[in-house]
Amino acid sequence: MGMMTGIEYRESLKLLKPEVYFMGEKIKSILDHPAFIPHINAAALTYDMALAPEFEELTSATSHLTNQKISRFTHIHHSHDDLIKKVKMLRAIGQQTGSCFQRCVGHDGLNAVYSVTFEIDKENGTNYHQRFIHMLKEVQNHDLMISGAMTDPKGDRALAPGKQKDPDAYLHIVQRKADGIIVRGAKAHITGAVNSHGHLVMPTAAMTAEDADYAVCFYVPVDAPGVIHIFGRQTNDTRKCDCTIDQGNEEYGIVGGEALIIFDDVFVPWEHVFMCGEYEFAYPLVERFATAHRQNYGGCKTGLADALIGATYLMAESQGAQGAAHIREKLIDMVHLAETLYCCSIACSCQGYALPSGSYMADPLLANITKLNVTRNIYEIARLTQDIAGGIMATLPAESDWKDPKIGKYLEKYMKGASVVPTETRMRLTRLLEAMTCGTALVESMHGAGSPQAQRIMIWRQANLEHKKRLARKLAKIKE
Amino acid sequence: MGMMTGIEYRESLKLLKPEVYFMGEKIKSILDHPAFIPHINAAALTYDMALAPEFEELTSATSHLTNQKISRFTHIHHSHDDLIKKVKMLRAIGQQTGSCFQRCVGHDGLNAVYSVTFEIDKENGTNYHQRFIHMLKEVQNHDLMISGAMTDPKGDRALAPGKQKDPDAYLHIVQRKADGIIVRGAKAHITGAVNSHGHLVMPTAAMTAEDADYAVCFYVPVDAPGVIHIFGRQTNDTRKCDCTIDQGNEEYGIVGGEALIIFDDVFVPWEHVFMCGEYEFAYPLVERFATAHRQNYGGCKTGLADALIGATYLMAESQGAQGAAHIREKLIDMVHLAETLYCCSIACSCQGYALPSGSYMADPLLANITKLNVTRNIYEIARLTQDIAGGIMATLPAESDWKDPKIGKYLEKYMKGASVVPTETRMRLTRLLEAMTCGTALVESMHGAGSPQAQRIMIWRQANLEHKKRLARKLAKIKE
Amino acid sequence: MGMMTGIEYRESLKLLKPEVYFMGEKIKSILDHPAFIPHINAAALTYDMALAPEFEELTSATSHLTNQKISRFTHIHHSHDDLIKKVKMLRAIGQQTGSCFQRCVGHDGLNAVYSVTFEIDKENGTNYHQRFIHMLKEVQNHDLMISGAMTDPKGDRALAPGKQKDPDAYLHIVQRKADGIIVRGAKAHITGAVNSHGHLVMPTAAMTAEDADYAVCFYVPVDAPGVIHIFGRQTNDTRKCDCTIDQGNEEYGIVGGEALIIFDDVFVPWEHVFMCGEYEFAYPLVERFATAHRQNYGGCKTGLADALIGATYLMAESQGAQGAAHIREKLIDMVHLAETLYCCSIACSCQGYALPSGSYMADPLLANITKLNVTRNIYEIARLTQDIAGGIMATLPAESDWKDPKIGKYLEKYMKGASVVPTETRMRLTRLLEAMTCGTALVESMHGAGSPQAQRIMIWRQANLEHKKRLARKLAKIKE
Amino acid sequence: MGMMTGIEYRESLKLLKPEVYFMGEKIKSILDHPAFIPHINAAALTYDMALAPEFEELTSATSHLTNQKISRFTHIHHSHDDLIKKVKMLRAIGQQTGSCFQRCVGHDGLNAVYSVTFEIDKENGTNYHQRFIHMLKEVQNHDLMISGAMTDPKGDRALAPGKQKDPDAYLHIVQRKADGIIVRGAKAHITGAVNSHGHLVMPTAAMTAEDADYAVCFYVPVDAPGVIHIFGRQTNDTRKCDCTIDQGNEEYGIVGGEALIIFDDVFVPWEHVFMCGEYEFAYPLVERFATAHRQNYGGCKTGLADALIGATYLMAESQGAQGAAHIREKLIDMVHLAETLYCCSIACSCQGYALPSGSYMADPLLANITKLNVTRNIYEIARLTQDIAGGIMATLPAESDWKDPKIGKYLEKYMKGASVVPTETRMRLTRLLEAMTCGTALVESMHGAGSPQAQRIMIWRQANLEHKKRLARKLAKIKE
Repeated sequence: MGMMTGIEYRESLKLLKPEVYFMGEKIKSILDHPAFIPHINAAALTYDMALAPEFEELTSATSHLTNQKISRFTHIHHSHDDLIKKVKMLRAIGQQTGSCFQRCVGHDGLNAVYSVTFEIDKENGTNYHQRFIHMLKEVQNHDLMISGAMTDPKGDRALAPGKQKDPDAYLHIVQRKADGIIVRGAKAHITGAVNSHGHLVMPTAAMTAEDADYAVCFYVPVDAPGVIHIFGRQTNDTRKCDCTIDQGNEEYGIVGGEALIIFDDVFVPWEHVFMCGEYEFAYPLVERFATAHRQNYGGCKTGLADALIGATYLMAESQGAQGAAHIREKLIDMVHLAETLYCCSIACSCQGYALPSGSYMADPLLANITKLNVTRNIYEIARLTQDIAGGIMATLPAESDWKDPKIGKYLEKYMKGASVVPTETRMRLTRLLEAMTCGTALVESMHGAGSPQAQRIMIWRQANLEHKKRLARKLAKIKE
Repeated sequence: MGMMTGIEYRESLKLLKPEVYFMGEKIKSILDHPAFIPHINAAALTYDMALAPEFEELTSATSHLTNQKISRFTHIHHSHDDLIKKVKMLRAIGQQTGSCFQRCVGHDGLNAVYSVTFEIDKENGTNYHQRFIHMLKEVQNHDLMISGAMTDPKGDRALAPGKQKDPDAYLHIVQRKADGIIVRGAKAHITGAVNSHGHLVMPTAAMTAEDADYAVCFYVPVDAPGVIHIFGRQTNDTRKCDCTIDQGNEEYGIVGGEALIIFDDVFVPWEHVFMCGEYEFAYPLVERFATAHRQNYGGCKTGLADALIGATYLMAESQGAQGAAHIREKLIDMVHLAETLYCCSIACSCQGYALPSGSYMADPLLANITKLNVTRNIYEIARLTQDIAGGIMATLPAESDWKDPKIGKYLEKYMKGASVVPTETRMRLTRLLEAMTCGTALVESMHGAGSPQAQRIMIWRQANLEHKKRLARKLAKIKE
Repeated sequence: MGMMTGIEYRESLKLLKPEVYFMGEKIKSILDHPAFIPHINAAALTYDMALAPEFEELTSATSHLTNQKISRFTHIHHSHDDLIKKVKMLRAIGQQTGSCFQRCVGHDGLNAVYSVTFEIDKENGTNYHQRFIHMLKEVQNHDLMISGAMTDPKGDRALAPGKQKDPDAYLHIVQRKADGIIVRGAKAHITGAVNSHGHLVMPTAAMTAEDADYAVCFYVPVDAPGVIHIFGRQTNDTRKCDCTIDQGNEEYGIVGGEALIIFDDVFVPWEHVFMCGEYEFAYPLVERFATAHRQNYGGCKTGLADALIGATYLMAESQGAQGAAHIREKLIDMVHLAETLYCCSIACSCQGYALPSGSYMADPLLANITKLNVTRNIYEIARLTQDIAGGIMATLPAESDWKDPKIGKYLEKYMKGASVVPTETRMRLTRLLEAMTCGTALVESMHGAGSPQAQRIMIWRQANLEHKKRLARKLAKIKE
Repeated sequence: MGMMTGIEYRESLKLLKPEVYFMGEKIKSILDHPAFIPHINAAALTYDMALAPEFEELTSATSHLTNQKISRFTHIHHSHDDLIKKVKMLRAIGQQTGSCFQRCVGHDGLNAVYSVTFEIDKENGTNYHQRFIHMLKEVQNHDLMISGAMTDPKGDRALAPGKQKDPDAYLHIVQRKADGIIVRGAKAHITGAVNSHGHLVMPTAAMTAEDADYAVCFYVPVDAPGVIHIFGRQTNDTRKCDCTIDQGNEEYGIVGGEALIIFDDVFVPWEHVFMCGEYEFAYPLVERFATAHRQNYGGCKTGLADALIGATYLMAESQGAQGAAHIREKLIDMVHLAETLYCCSIACSCQGYALPSGSYMADPLLANITKLNVTRNIYEIARLTQDIAGGIMATLPAESDWKDPKIGKYLEKYMKGASVVPTETRMRLTRLLEAMTCGTALVESMHGAGSPQAQRIMIWRQANLEHKKRLARKLAKIKE
């Protein structure tokens, strides 16, 4: 009991038996399968960094429940400083992994459910909040990694949950029993799902009375009966199985390891149920989770961008091009785009506020501004990387050719750029840049924490346009 | 003695006799000349808002020198909270004026000189800091409005100050005397200059030993002998003289009222000299002032944008177009662009730090990010306004036509949009939008607080690219 | 009879007595009033250039009706070459004027009405086309300047013409008589209206049977009884009355001189009526005019941009900044943005086609692409100009200050940049850049030839998305 | 002899024995290896389309040498119409393949060498042009597919060819013999190389007298001794080996199949040598090839974009989202971005001109404008696709999971969107969108036909800025 090291985290996963499929195969042990190892490495690093002296001020916190030192990923924010430190932690870890490290999703789920259960109880006299605190203590004390499972498959986007042709297009309660509930449905795109200890499941949209069975929030262990994980494909995923250099980011992969989670009539005991039909609280829960999660993207993605900018600069050096004025201007553009994202994350944290439960949330308007900028700036940063890196990114032969006894010498000779930089360095940089700007990584920047249109709708709601109109009328001397 | 009201500020200006020229005319009284009135109104509003109960938490502060309540515009920042409140104050005032209110320049100058004089004295054993504190107390106690005069004409941009063909292209010391110094040169684009009580003059660039006579910082009253102000032209400036509605923002104008200040062998007594040849401190002074000033632009400009967005929305309503989806999307874009600027200002404030003097400055990297975003986003916001507003912005006849007994009825009839909105409202909105998106206002967004390339150079210096390279090498498993 | 010189054009205007108002004043003679002179100059130049040997291949044509040499502005296109030469003519003239020269509007109107009257007659057995040809010969033989008057005030944009509260919000027939019709309403934003010989009036939108009275097309002389012109305000318009250098483009002004034309129960004889209730042809007429007019904007605006880019480069030289890498990159960006517009105009011309009447029209999809690019690229070009030009664009004092015997010497000294460039040159460049990038000129780029959303709607209609879907299904091996 | 069908093309490849390596393996038969099949399919389709009645007007031409009907890919342009038809052919084929079909590179090489050899001979009295015509007839008569091999590895970009540490960083002549020359070096990123019949090798940069051995142009059969091909990796390339649906574009792949070609002391007989030391013609050859190749990108890429836009629209329909206003606006943006590229290609074709040899080339300025737009618009189109498509693009499980007897039912159920669209359709669309917007495809848009900075340099050279300055001086009334 207490905080785990990365090694202890790996050990803890060995005790679990999640049902996982990938490319038509049932996976016996994710710890031993190359498709999963980089994602486990990234998660393990979050454990080690929580204990590392140079990072612990950011990566650990003191539990308001137990007063013990805990991983910040299990902490409930209680100040602006907590909100800001989260962002700085995400940037610091992102700089090390160059990829998603997964744990922020569950963290944001814990914070959202914490505050909303408090308010449900206050309104309805239920006892969800105490149940949740009990589970939260378990999470903190055992340093568990929890996925945050929100997004439903959604079926036809033009129809509400209760109007779908397939009622399971959104996860819902199929039975209420004395000892718990039975749920059916699925959650899609769930980051870190297969290497978590359990899933915190939340509704995905505003609900009406008709949708009450869809307003359900609960926790299940990753290996609960009926919980099935189908791991998604990623760009160049099979390189994890048969390459080293060609992976680009061999250690940590390119994204968070997203899975589709099927809930095939899963039983959840009451002590793990945190919302059960209180449809009017579905939207607040979604909004709080979304705010917390959108806040993150200017932290972690800026960390990734730091590494990417460094790699791009090294790439220019490897080609002797670092002295060109246009290279410098493009690197400045990349820094500008990245730091703008960081500014947004810091600002929404700094402008956060306390909720009735005493926990803190980021400013919702500015958190949505943050994420909407991410959906553009990260693409532009990738474009600039690909501009500087050159055509080699699209045509570099395989590392196995370079290692080949007959033709390797040709690659060693002709893939060389500036004479002071080894050919291997140039190849490694090419593959790292490829990994960090490839399709899946960009799409994750676009749709993680919600699609751009979701952010735009929240911006519209939060923008207080009536106040702006009043200002304008006064300036133009218009009588209302 | 003590804080002034707007009326008292106007009264105080009557006691001064600055030498001011505009359009070939020597101005007898700026208080009575329509070219200056809106700018005086905007400055006066900063006085009134400092005393207004609903704003004073942002607009006033407690002097660390006298412990008295003072205008925040004369305050030396001593905390993150001070830095953040400055930004919020600027947004709040900008929402009311829809235009530049001028006082932030001197405020930033006071803060920059305060901290740098402390460091010069520490290094050289001089007593500039005490001199400056003495003057600062005067400023605080009498609530003076001080311009910040930094930008030199610069002559040939390819040459350093000491290498110019005309040695006066940068302001410099021409004589050192027992009781003070004599200076010659000019300062360009000085906001609020003619309606300030005095000028805080600072060097504009990094200097070398050869440029020592150009490393000079001092204060002069606005009406000191030899100080001459030539007021710049603004877009549609003569409308201030002969129109009401056509001004667009009759009350507060379109920019800050910039002037060229000539220093024709001006005497400055030693007690008002704060740097005199310490060339190695010229760059720190420039950098601190620039940082403080670039921090601002996501505050005030977001305030202006708030009013502009409101006016644009009203304009859409006046045309019956507010229900169109593309109008809503464009308004969201405008909010997104504006709030991104605000995020940057908040973030560089939140990430500021204490200097040796104990005063606080904003984070320089993020402050430069802020301003660089302003040079783009404000233009884009203006473009969206002009998109929504329609061709009427380019072709609306004069208010005098609308008031004309013969043809006014035609304008009343044909300039009407949606039937519920009076024609006058539509005309007033058109003119307000015109005033807020016209040439001068945009150029000010581009070049105020330094040109984009100045920000890019500072971003390059501050970006710590070596650290980024180290992160990349680690990820790519490259041995250094 | 025959082509006129610029001087003859001016003489011909003296014979007309249009009713014109500007700034509350009834204008006796537009030829003698400074508000109109630059616009007359620009129109006059089109006459001179039609006769100039170095331009006549582009600026003149051979009438298909009379086989005489005519101004291209009165020509009906009969080949791709005609369409392309129009674009090249517009660029060539725009390079000389740096401003709108007005005549393309009527030219596009003539071409649109020519082809549509042919089709109405074919469908309905009417004789509009012969009537129109009769008038067209007059226009060609006397080299008349015709405005193209399409845009109605529109009132509430959410309502169709026939549903407006004020039935006159769109121009309509109020009476059909034996000898002609009486019309009432107004046309807004009409370029070159006051210095044209007559107006070609067209409907502005698709119509239904209910709107039949609004489906009207006709010609009136500029001084027909009941036709009243109210000239719109422009940015810095009063500088035309009291300045020289400060005008920026003293010779040709900043835009085309737009006016609101009131039709206060105007009588139009039948020989000048070209559509009278054929509502189903209103949309084809609008679409053809819009296509022809949107085609233009990559011609004339590229011509203006050529001059603007040259002026911006000279401005950089005047400041000694021409050697900076970022200046070169920005100039390349400006060329890139401008030539992209030109490509679009050339392409829609090259891809044009013959209509049933035998006349040619540009490709509608690509013409709309052209104009939509103009609404962005011209703004971006202006932004880059303002970036390079510096803060002087917002703060330069008046020419009267520079000419002042007392203070002129200060401006002469301190407004000087690089020593080889006279101060006057720098001031002239500043004012030219200001004139070309100011509010009205940009708004004209946005809304001239229709607002961006109008182009987007036409793009949607023309994009043949069903064909694109079929291509996709085939590639994805999806059975329909 | 004569034009080949796709099947005949495949047969012809069987007669060749190129030395090809991929992923550490020597390839016995590219026709039988899945890594190469889609690229061969795309090339084969160009043969079939040249004979297809509905396409032959665009895809075939009449030889000016033999007067026979030939593939347009072996034709020398002799009119504007030829230039325009090339662009239309590329769009038409791109619509069918959704991927690169490779043959334009050799086509552009043939045209560039044709005109430059004419000029070398004229200047120097050599007989390169006749040699070339002899080879060209072979190419036309046998309908050969020729790669265009220009880009050298380049080593250190800061050094000229003759200054490199490794003299082979640029391909060069190592020996001149009685019967021919021996060359050494490599050519990188060569499209369609392994499935071509031969390579047309050209120099890559401007040369000086010192670099004369690098000024070499010649033809070699694909299986000449010493010619070695190392095939580059592509995004998700191994899916070609083990998947069907997951390939996305199973038939035609994602790019052109680029290879590094090693020339390990290859002998070239004189009749196949077209430049040998005439260094002053290296730059004209590069410029003509670059112009011809940059012209293409608004043709083929618009064709690809047509299919991509269609697929994106289908994807929105598959999710029930096609009615949302923001989806429509994004599709309009995609069309706008794509058609702008097409406009540029058409315009540079339409504005092309005849060379001394009588062949035609596109306008160089506008061709560079075209390609520079491609390096941005294609990325933006991809971003919009990924926006509309949703997170499924990053997380969709493998087709083998969907086909799995145990878990396939879950994917069938939960990957379903709108009820009328089969799950398989949605999966196929997801994979097609993934394939068309993934890393390699985008990088190819960036760097194919030269990197953006290469285009910018040519724009700078071609922009005639002195003329623009003259226009500006005239407008501003500045005496030179």
